Amino acid sequence: MLVVQKYGGTSVGGLDRIESVANRVIRAKDENKDLVIVVSAMSGETNKLVGYADNFTSNPSKREYDMLVSSGEQVTASLLAIALISKGYDAIAMSGKEAGILTDNNHTYARIESIDTTNMRKALDNNKIVVVAGFQGANANGDITTLGRGGSDLSAVAIAGALKADICEIYSDVDGIYTTDPRIEPHAKKLDSISYDEMLELSSLGAKVLQNRSVELAKKLGVKLYAKSSFSDDKGTLIQEESNNMEAVVVSGVVLDKNQARVTLRGVSDRPGIASEIFTSLADEGIVVDMIIQNVGTDGLTNLGFTVPQNDFEKAKELMEHFDHDIEGIDFDFDVCKVSIVGVGMRSHSGVAATAFTQMAKDNINIEMISTSEIKISMIINDKYGELAIRELHKIYNLDK
Amino acid sequence: MLVVQKYGGTSVGGLDRIESVANRVIRAKDENKDLVIVVSAMSGETNKLVGYADNFTSNPSKREYDMLVSSGEQVTASLLAIALISKGYDAIAMSGKEAGILTDNNHTYARIESIDTTNMRKALDNNKIVVVAGFQGANANGDITTLGRGGSDLSAVAIAGALKADICEIYSDVDGIYTTDPRIEPHAKKLDSISYDEMLELSSLGAKVLQNRSVELAKKLGVKLYAKSSFSDDKGTLIQEESNNMEAVVVSGVVLDKNQARVTLRGVSDRPGIASEIFTSLADEGIVVDMIIQNVGTDGLTNLGFTVPQNDFEKAKELMEHFDHDIEGIDFDFDVCKVSIVGVGMRSHSGVAATAFTQMAKDNINIEMISTSEIKISMIINDKYGELAIRELHKIYNLDK
Repeated sequence: MLVVQKYGGTSVGGLDRIESVANRVIRAKDENKDLVIVVSAMSGETNKLVGYADNFTSNPSKREYDMLVSSGEQVTASLLAIALISKGYDAIAMSGKEAGILTDNNHTYARIESIDTTNMRKALDNNKIVVVAGFQGANANGDITTLGRGGSDLSAVAIAGALKADICEIYSDVDGIYTTDPRIEPHAKKLDSISYDEMLELSSLGAKVLQNRSVELAKKLGVKLYAKSSFSDDKGTLIQEESNNMEAVVVSGVVLDKNQARVTLRGVSDRPGIASEIFTSLADEGIVVDMIIQNVGTDGLTNLGFTVPQNDFEKAKELMEHFDHDIEGIDFDFDVCKVSIVGVGMRSHSGVAATAFTQMAKDNINIEMISTSEIKISMIINDKYGELAIRELHKIYNLDK
Repeated sequence: MLVVQKYGGTSVGGLDRIESVANRVIRAKDENKDLVIVVSAMSGETNKLVGYADNFTSNPSKREYDMLVSSGEQVTASLLAIALISKGYDAIAMSGKEAGILTDNNHTYARIESIDTTNMRKALDNNKIVVVAGFQGANANGDITTLGRGGSDLSAVAIAGALKADICEIYSDVDGIYTTDPRIEPHAKKLDSISYDEMLELSSLGAKVLQNRSVELAKKLGVKLYAKSSFSDDKGTLIQEESNNMEAVVVSGVVLDKNQARVTLRGVSDRPGIASEIFTSLADEGIVVDMIIQNVGTDGLTNLGFTVPQNDFEKAKELMEHFDHDIEGIDFDFDVCKVSIVGVGMRSHSGVAATAFTQMAKDNINIEMISTSEIKISMIINDKYGELAIRELHKIYNLDK
């Protein structure tokens, strides 16, 4: 049985924690599992390195930035291998590059193009525990690239897919996926299992356990994921293909995403191509637009609203302020958040949205934007009502039961 | 003009220091120099990483240890390149591996076998400042190797040789080579120039400015070295081939090496091959033996003395205690130091040794071992007299004048 385990920053947050991870890895090895262990940087390390670069410039050279921050995972991988070897287990540490992770050239947010598993296979065939530095790879030129924040999950899933691993366990300081953030709603319940699609919506909407791209990739590659805690022996939450018994549940979770800023373009000329121009200019700057709302207009004019992550807000604002043709005016709102309700059961149940809107009205919360998909309803509301909305929705959908 | 500059740990000991190094590099670039900058880890970083490994085992897996500690230089190289680029200068950071430094397979103390200068040349041809992580390379297998403590000097010299650089400047917190350690003798004087051979003796004997292997390599490759301070604009000390005007000076410097421990094998059977057996067994364990003294014996027995670095003492002690055939007994002495007098002038001047011995006698310092070469006289004495001996010798050879 081949298992890929990934340990996040808090799981390897200190030497004692790395020791504890080593012992957990050894328990799995003693069960005769073949193991690839993917590690993040020790918590705080990446921020420290980023802070170093920030000292010189707010816009560091991306190639060198990648070389800089990738050292954090290199340190953890080396240390975990040293710990395992010192306990009498054969292990080998590899950088992402050594593990064969080939990415595109998009420094600081590279995409994995392929994995040459030769080195890892050879080590596994020799019964070694392979310890891989997460979050990183190399482009075709051999330059170190990084995969963006949370990229270690992606490394783990991609490796699990490439090696056709039986399962991929993602360890963090959270013991699974909850119906909502327990810090907001103490009655949040842990889910035993959840579908990729639900997890995708939960992940992209702010549940910080698993990164969206990782779940997407897991779905694409058919990698069974376990979200587990490295601080307990809880069995965690299994993320896999939708199964029949899931349909009994209408709503699986509600999530709050505070990393939202809203831009509304008023009086946009309602002609073909204008939306394309706007979003192409944003995409060219690498700004990931989240919600987009456009209504049918009157008099050939329409209002176009969209949201961006808060750290892209200033850039988006500047771009839009210079995008002056065919627009009457622009509104910006930094003080918004997104509340979402997720559940595969919505596919076969009606009235889920109505229940949410009714509850918001009862609480006097104004809904600024609404967007729905097959298994998700999202609402943009004023920032200050975010937590309240989550607690109210959690209750109305009986998630605490 | 192609210049290789190397900045040691204290020169890049903090973000402000890296900023200051960037400005120094830029001054050289503005003088139209082609530049390769080799950097050490920020001071304290390597020790921190070594301490991490020590937490798990006193004998970490060497391959992983190299992967671990090499990250320190990777961080500095990235940061310096980021600083230079942010100031509008084109720069590129390279790991030792990317700079083409191929080493043997001897992890933690690898030797440079060759340098493929393709990447560096290409960058220099594009007028980029090349910033290389010192102390490291990669073996033929592509695994990261490190060159041992002080290995960044070696990186710099090897690169200067491979690129046929005009000069190689070694920056530290010391502004050149002194007649002795100024912390021991305040009247120590800075030398304007010194020969490779003298520097070799001074370096191997404990002057911490330049690593022995680096000077050897510089001599072999004919690389002109400048030992300079990154904290001042002093012109430093030039280290080059012996020149005629140097001969006027008999003694260039006196040095104290406290990193010595003495082993004496008593009653060693005076037959061919026994010394070979002893020193092969030490070499097999990677123990670098420094002084070796053997006298003509009587009754087919002789005493054989040698010194090792203090951190190899325990290993050497254990080895010798198990090396029981043909030996009557063993003495160990940890509390010794080595005092050496260095000068190319000894070649043509007699009486230098006699002066030293006379002075030691006057100070009631017992000389335990003596070893001489063409340009050096070394004495092993009790540890507690080290500083006194240095001060007395500095005076007697008029080094303070």
